[in-house]
Amino acid sequence: MRYTLAVLVENKPGVLARVAGLFARRGYNIDSLAVGVTDNPEISRMTIVVRGDEKVIEQVIKQLNKLVDVIKISMLSEKESVERSLALFKVSADSKTRPTIMQIVDIFRAKIIDVGSKSLIIEITGDEDKINAMERLLRSYGILEVCRTGKIAMNRGLKSVSYEK
Amino acid sequence: MRYTLAVLVENKPGVLARVAGLFARRGYNIDSLAVGVTDNPEISRMTIVVRGDEKVIEQVIKQLNKLVDVIKISMLSEKESVERSLALFKVSADSKTRPTIMQIVDIFRAKIIDVGSKSLIIEITGDEDKINAMERLLRSYGILEVCRTGKIAMNRGLKSVSYEK
Repeated sequence: MRYTLAVLVENKPGVLARVAGLFARRGYNIDSLAVGVTDNPEISRMTIVVRGDEKVIEQVIKQLNKLVDVIKISMLSEKESVERSLALFKVSADSKTRPTIMQIVDIFRAKIIDVGSKSLIIEITGDEDKINAMERLLRSYGILEVCRTGKIAMNRGLKSVSYEK
Repeated sequence: MRYTLAVLVENKPGVLARVAGLFARRGYNIDSLAVGVTDNPEISRMTIVVRGDEKVIEQVIKQLNKLVDVIKISMLSEKESVERSLALFKVSADSKTRPTIMQIVDIFRAKIIDVGSKSLIIEITGDEDKINAMERLLRSYGILEVCRTGKIAMNRGLKSVSYEK
């Protein structure tokens, strides 16, 4: 099973190293990690995707809670949350192939954010399946470079992962 | 000065901990870090934003190069690259405020990806300035939750950060 954790942490040097180190030392496999600031500059939010059974996850949460810089941990359920990641694809494109690539971009509601004489850069957001599907379609044109963020996720509706303000 | 590094690493457990640990031990400040898979499942790509003078950056690159899991490091110039990050904002919204919030969403070419009776979730991509500008505008409606990825970046045109295939 894959679990998605939203972790609020103090925005201090070394926090990422401590969190990542905890996973590494215990041999827990991180599938994806994304970290960014929140509306409070002193607090960052990490979205961590971990693979394992329920016991492993309970252990992970217990261990994370022991770190002094961790403020709050929530497990997000796939059904009740929205999840997104962002990818940039640089693809070979000339005047001949550009129109069909632009069609694919339209279908996926992606955006072309750079055009060169022999290449394009495409920006796409979505869940992993959508981004993977686009990547498969682009492969036949020649993918020159890929850059992806980890997944971020948020509960639908009013239920929020937040700190006491 | 802020520097953006694109780092290709082996997709193995513990690599993130080693990279983050290197920065923490030397007291280098990471402004943002994003990590995701590439088109080769054995290779991940990190985008790391570091603050410091040129000497610090040279040191960072030298140290990173010593890690066995690091395959390639490139420094991206702001002028010659595109950079993007992704953010989700959950905002208070009722039937009265929803139309004006939707206007803001349109202006920023953002997307509404969840609607509740009292809240909305907005997805936006762009550079940091754009995302910060939207956050400032949304603040007056009540931001309930924020989740952001780190920045990812890519050279414009054919110049690519890639490994030997």
